[in-house]
Amino acid sequence: MSNTFGKIFTLTTFGESHGEAIGGIIDGCPAGIELDLNAIQSEMDRRKPGQSKIVTQRKEPDEVQFLSGIFEGKTTGMSIGFMIKNVQQRSNDYSHIKDAYRPSHADFTYDKKYGTRDYRGGGRASARETANWVVGGAVAKQVISTIKINAFTSSVGSIFMEKPYQEIDFSAIESNIVRCPDKETAQKMIAYINEIKTQGDTVGGTVTCVIQNIPVGLGEPIFDKLHAQLGKAMLSINAVKGFEYGSGFCGAKMKGSEHNDILNEDGTTKTNLSGGIQGGITNGMDIYFRVAFKPVATIMQVQQTINTEGDSVEIHGKGRHDPCVVPRAVPIVEAMAALVLVDFMLLNK
Amino acid sequence: MSNTFGKIFTLTTFGESHGEAIGGIIDGCPAGIELDLNAIQSEMDRRKPGQSKIVTQRKEPDEVQFLSGIFEGKTTGMSIGFMIKNVQQRSNDYSHIKDAYRPSHADFTYDKKYGTRDYRGGGRASARETANWVVGGAVAKQVISTIKINAFTSSVGSIFMEKPYQEIDFSAIESNIVRCPDKETAQKMIAYINEIKTQGDTVGGTVTCVIQNIPVGLGEPIFDKLHAQLGKAMLSINAVKGFEYGSGFCGAKMKGSEHNDILNEDGTTKTNLSGGIQGGITNGMDIYFRVAFKPVATIMQVQQTINTEGDSVEIHGKGRHDPCVVPRAVPIVEAMAALVLVDFMLLNK
Amino acid sequence: MSNTFGKIFTLTTFGESHGEAIGGIIDGCPAGIELDLNAIQSEMDRRKPGQSKIVTQRKEPDEVQFLSGIFEGKTTGMSIGFMIKNVQQRSNDYSHIKDAYRPSHADFTYDKKYGTRDYRGGGRASARETANWVVGGAVAKQVISTIKINAFTSSVGSIFMEKPYQEIDFSAIESNIVRCPDKETAQKMIAYINEIKTQGDTVGGTVTCVIQNIPVGLGEPIFDKLHAQLGKAMLSINAVKGFEYGSGFCGAKMKGSEHNDILNEDGTTKTNLSGGIQGGITNGMDIYFRVAFKPVATIMQVQQTINTEGDSVEIHGKGRHDPCVVPRAVPIVEAMAALVLVDFMLLNK
Amino acid sequence: MSNTFGKIFTLTTFGESHGEAIGGIIDGCPAGIELDLNAIQSEMDRRKPGQSKIVTQRKEPDEVQFLSGIFEGKTTGMSIGFMIKNVQQRSNDYSHIKDAYRPSHADFTYDKKYGTRDYRGGGRASARETANWVVGGAVAKQVISTIKINAFTSSVGSIFMEKPYQEIDFSAIESNIVRCPDKETAQKMIAYINEIKTQGDTVGGTVTCVIQNIPVGLGEPIFDKLHAQLGKAMLSINAVKGFEYGSGFCGAKMKGSEHNDILNEDGTTKTNLSGGIQGGITNGMDIYFRVAFKPVATIMQVQQTINTEGDSVEIHGKGRHDPCVVPRAVPIVEAMAALVLVDFMLLNK
Repeated sequence: MSNTFGKIFTLTTFGESHGEAIGGIIDGCPAGIELDLNAIQSEMDRRKPGQSKIVTQRKEPDEVQFLSGIFEGKTTGMSIGFMIKNVQQRSNDYSHIKDAYRPSHADFTYDKKYGTRDYRGGGRASARETANWVVGGAVAKQVISTIKINAFTSSVGSIFMEKPYQEIDFSAIESNIVRCPDKETAQKMIAYINEIKTQGDTVGGTVTCVIQNIPVGLGEPIFDKLHAQLGKAMLSINAVKGFEYGSGFCGAKMKGSEHNDILNEDGTTKTNLSGGIQGGITNGMDIYFRVAFKPVATIMQVQQTINTEGDSVEIHGKGRHDPCVVPRAVPIVEAMAALVLVDFMLLNK
Repeated sequence: MSNTFGKIFTLTTFGESHGEAIGGIIDGCPAGIELDLNAIQSEMDRRKPGQSKIVTQRKEPDEVQFLSGIFEGKTTGMSIGFMIKNVQQRSNDYSHIKDAYRPSHADFTYDKKYGTRDYRGGGRASARETANWVVGGAVAKQVISTIKINAFTSSVGSIFMEKPYQEIDFSAIESNIVRCPDKETAQKMIAYINEIKTQGDTVGGTVTCVIQNIPVGLGEPIFDKLHAQLGKAMLSINAVKGFEYGSGFCGAKMKGSEHNDILNEDGTTKTNLSGGIQGGITNGMDIYFRVAFKPVATIMQVQQTINTEGDSVEIHGKGRHDPCVVPRAVPIVEAMAALVLVDFMLLNK
Repeated sequence: MSNTFGKIFTLTTFGESHGEAIGGIIDGCPAGIELDLNAIQSEMDRRKPGQSKIVTQRKEPDEVQFLSGIFEGKTTGMSIGFMIKNVQQRSNDYSHIKDAYRPSHADFTYDKKYGTRDYRGGGRASARETANWVVGGAVAKQVISTIKINAFTSSVGSIFMEKPYQEIDFSAIESNIVRCPDKETAQKMIAYINEIKTQGDTVGGTVTCVIQNIPVGLGEPIFDKLHAQLGKAMLSINAVKGFEYGSGFCGAKMKGSEHNDILNEDGTTKTNLSGGIQGGITNGMDIYFRVAFKPVATIMQVQQTINTEGDSVEIHGKGRHDPCVVPRAVPIVEAMAALVLVDFMLLNK
Repeated sequence: MSNTFGKIFTLTTFGESHGEAIGGIIDGCPAGIELDLNAIQSEMDRRKPGQSKIVTQRKEPDEVQFLSGIFEGKTTGMSIGFMIKNVQQRSNDYSHIKDAYRPSHADFTYDKKYGTRDYRGGGRASARETANWVVGGAVAKQVISTIKINAFTSSVGSIFMEKPYQEIDFSAIESNIVRCPDKETAQKMIAYINEIKTQGDTVGGTVTCVIQNIPVGLGEPIFDKLHAQLGKAMLSINAVKGFEYGSGFCGAKMKGSEHNDILNEDGTTKTNLSGGIQGGITNGMDIYFRVAFKPVATIMQVQQTINTEGDSVEIHGKGRHDPCVVPRAVPIVEAMAALVLVDFMLLNK
C-alpha cells in the first residue's frame, strides 16, 4: 500500500497531475472534531502554484471538496473522502516528453518498473500529489491543535539563515514570499531565486521545522521511533535528499561530554541537542529538524538525454516550473509533520 | 507493532539487555534458500562487544540459535524463530541508575511513557537489540545475494575520509578495527578514539553505505520510496541523528544544471547525484547514503542529573562502554539496508 | 484502518448513503491491465436498486467514474481513484429516525461509539457502501480473469435449492430476478418474497459461491488461511450471520473415515469435503462456501423502540427497502471473493 | 506476515511440532499489568495432550518460558518473547509420511506451494502451533479481565447439547473431560468418543463461545466489524469449517418481524438474535457464536493415497492422535476470542 501514510490516522491518495482530479481518503480521524474548512483552504493556498513571482506561474485554484465523514460541521469518525479537481492543461504541452526521459526525473524509472507511464506532467510522480498531503496535514493539525508546528526556509543555495530557531519570530514566516522569517536573509534569497530563474536554472535549499508544546511520551521504541517516522515522512516529499534532527550531522563531530543534555529538576534539559526525542520518544523539549531539497530537475535549458528507444536526443524544459521548490515546500513539511504527530498522539491514548 | 520491521520479509524482535535472551521471528522468507549459518555468525562477530581495543570490553559470544523454519539446511517458507542467550551480568552493576536518569539516554522518556522500566543496562532501549537486526540482515543478505552492500566508517569526530567511494577498495574495510577502508585515515581515527577513551569521553561519527548491482525498478512511488524506507531504517538505529543519500545536504546548495544526472544511451547516467534512486525507484546506478551517529551518551565522567523524585544528583558512568559507536555500527547499517532491500526485492516480484 | 480491505491489492472506501458521493481507492493493481469498463458497470447493475420488482424500488444509476490510475485504457500501476455520485434523496425522509434507534440497525451502536451519527439513510452503515466493493471486485475479477467465481441464491427463508452445485448451470443464475439457477426453486422464492413484501415484512436467505479453475498453492498457513480471509470478507457484508466452506457445519457431524478426501494419482481428490482448501491453502479443487443473511431490519410495520433520550417510542419503516437482501447480495459475495483471491494471487508471485 | 495476529495487541509465532521449540512474541501489551503466570499455565494445561482418556495420549508438559517484557512481575510495555520447548519425538515415527500425502492434511498443499516441507508431525501445519495461541490468549485475558469468555463443547457428531446458553452453569464446563456443561450430554459424548476411538476413527463437533460483560462500542464499521474478526480468528483454528454468531444460519430462515431485537429503555434488547453486535459494533448484550470442527484427518485405518511421485500407495495412521479435537479446542476458541477482544479494547481507547 504505497499510497497510504500512517497507522491510526491514515491518508490514502490517488491522482495524476493531468487526470480529472486528485484526492484521498483520511481514515481514523476521531469523531466530533469541528473542522475549520477555511483554515484547511489557507494551507492549500500556501502550497498552490502561482502564489508569488518566485514560484511556478501556473494557475490552479486547488479547492478541496469534502465528500464524506463530516456531518453538520463535525467529523463523524467515518472515513473522510476528498477531491481536488485538476484545471486541465492541454496534453500536447507534454508531447515533447512522451518518448524522452527527462534527466533526474522519475520518467526512466517509472517506465522500466511499470512498462508504461502517464507522461503528462509527470503523472503520479508530480509534486501535485503533495496537495493531497496538505489536505491530510491540515485536518491533522486541527485534531492536535495544541501542538505548534512551524516550518520555514532556512537556506537557498548557499544563502543560509544563521539565526538559531530560538531567536525567530515565527509570525514573520508568512511576511515574505520565500518564507524565511529573517527579513534580510529573505531578501537575499528572493534576489538569488530571481537571478537563477533568469538563467533558466533552478536551485535547492533547506527547510527547518520546529514543533513545540509536545507531550512527553510520543513515539515508540525500536522501529517506530518518532524521529524515524518523521524522517520517512520528509524523505517521501519530492526532491528531498536528506534529513537531520537535533544536533544532526554536526552532532557526529561532537564529544559525549559536549553533546549530552543535562536534566533540570523539572525534567527539562539545559541544552537540547537531542532535538526533543530520546530513545525515539519525546521528552517534552522542542523537536526540530532540517530537510534538504535538491534543485528542481526541470530547467529552461537544453539538456542531452535519451528517448525510449535509447537514442540520444535533446530536450528543453517547457511550461511553468518552480525555480526553487523550497518556498512551496514549507507547508508540505508542516503537513507531513502533522500527519506523523497525529498518528503518535492517537496511538498514545 | 513497533517491534516489527518490513512488509513482506518481516523481522519482529524481543529482549532486554539483561533478560535471559533476546531474539526474534523472521517471517516471509522464501522457501528453499540454503542458509550459510557460518556467514550469519560472522556478521554477528562484526557487531559483538569485545572484538577490539576501541570498543566496549564486555564479552558476549552472541551465538544465534535458530529454532524453526529451517529443515535439512534450507528455509521452508515458515517463520524463522531465533534466540541469542544473554551472558547475564550482575544486576547490581546497574543499581546506581535504578532511580537516576542518565542524560541523553532513554531513561527519562521510558519512565514517563510506561510508568516503569527495566533499568538494567538500558533494558529494551539498549543497543543490544541490534544484535537481532544483524541476524535478520544476515539472512536477508543470503536471500538477495546478488546485491552487494558495503558500509564503512567515513568519519570519526572531525576526522573525515575524503576519498570518494568510487576509489575505495571495499575489501580493505575489515583490515582495521575502525572499519575505514583508507589505511591512513583509519590510523588517525583509531588514535583519536583511544585518546577520547582515555579522557573518559566518547565521540560521534558517520557511516557511509554503498549498494551495488541493484536491479532497476525497486521501490514504490509516493509513500514507500526506497530512500524513505532506507532513511527510516537508519534512523531506527540507536544514536543516529541524520541521513542523506546521493548528493544529500550538499545537493541543497546546487543548481539544477549542475545536479541533473544526464542519461547515457544504455540508461546509465554520467553523474550519480541522484544516488541511484529517482522518484523513489532505483535506476540501476549505485545507491549510496551517509548516516550520522551522535557520541555515546554514557561517559566515564561525573555528570549532573536528576533522580525519579526530581532531585538533583550526580551520576558516574560505570561498566564497559564504547568510546565510539561507529566501528560496531557498520554491520548494523548493512543489516538494516539488507532488510529494506529484501523487502522491495520480494515486493517487486 | 477499518475502511481498507486487502494487503497487496487493497480497497479503501468512503461515503455515506446521503452524502454527495461514495467512492474509493484501489491500490496495488498491477500495471498494464486493459480494463473493460462496461464489464465493471454490468457488475454495478447487478447490485443496483430498482433492478426488479423484488428489490427496493429506489432508483440510483450507480455509475462509476474513474479518476486516476488508468491511462490510454490500461492500468498504470498507480492507485485507482473512483467515485459514484449519490442521487440525493431529501433528508427529511429520515427525520423520523433522527432521534430514534431502529431495532437491529447500527443506530444505537454508532451513537454510543462516536457520540454522533449521520442518521440519513444509515450513513456509513448503509449497504450502499457495498457499491464500492463491487467496483473493487469488478476490477479484481479482470486481474484474475482465469478464475471463475459464481455466486447464487441457495435459499430464501425455508425454501432451499437442494441440487448440489456440481449439477448447476451457472449461466442460468441471471435468468431470473432472484438469482437462483434452479428455475422451479426460483419461482417459489420469488413468490415467497412477494408475499413477505405484501406483509410489510422481510426475510433472510443464503448465498452459495463456487470458485473454479484455481491454482494450487493460494493461501498462507497460520493466520492468513484462504478460508479465514474468505470468511472475514463475507462476514463484513451487511446482514451476514454465518459462513461455512466445504462440508461446513455438516462436517462437524461426520466421522474422519467419511470426511477425508482421498487423493487420485493426478493430485485431485475423489470427494471434496475440504472445499478446495487444506491447511489454509488451495489444492486445486473447487472452493465453495455458503453465507447466511439475516432478514433486512427495516420492516414496514410498527415497532416499539427507544429514542436517544431513552424514552419508549414507536417507529414505522419508511422509504423503499428490500424485502429480501439476497438477490442483490449475490454480486457482492462475488466481489468480496474476487478481492480475497486477487490478493492471494498477487501474494503468491 | 501470515504468522501475526492482531493490530494493536499482536501475536507473532514460530515453530514446528518437531523442532526444538515453538514460541512467539506478543507486541502491544500495555505496561504495568501484573501477570499471573499460574493462570497462564492453567490455560496451557487445558489444551495440552494427554490430559484425559479421550484425547491424544502424547505427553508434553507444555511449559511456557517468558524471555522478555516482564520485569518484577509486571509487563513493561515492551515486546514479550516466549518459548515452549518441544519434548522431541523420534523423527522416524514419521518416515512413513515423508513421501506420502495424508488425505485431508496439508501435506499436499504445503509441498506444492513451498516445494518442500518439514514432514515431521505436520511441521508448522500441526495443531501444536495453537499452544502459542493459548499463551497469547491467556495474557490477553489478563489485560481485559473484566470481560468473561466461556467456551464449551456444544456437539460431538450428532450429539447436541440442546439447552440454550442462558441456562448453563459455566462453572460446570471443566467438571468433565469433554467440556460440555450439561452432565448428561457430556456422558453421551464421552461414550461416543470412546466408541469412535475403538473403531480407529475420529469425529467432528462444535464449540460454542459466550462473551459477557462487554462494553458498548467495541468493533469498527466496514472492514473491521467485530464479528468479522471473530470469524477470521475462529476459521484460523485447525479443522474449523464454519462460524456463525447470534442467530447464525437459523437467522437466514427468519422474518424481520421475528428477528429484530426490540430495545428496552435502558438500551438492552428484549431478544438477542443480533448476538451482541449491530453494524459490527457491540451493543453491550452477550456475544455468542458457534464454531464447526471437522473430524481429525488422521485415522487409525488404512487409507488409499498417493506419494510425492504420484503413485498410489496405502497409508496407516500411526502415533497417538485425538479421536475428537473438540475438548482440547475449547481453550483455543477462548484464546482466539481473547486476542480479538483485547485488540478492539485497546483500539477503542
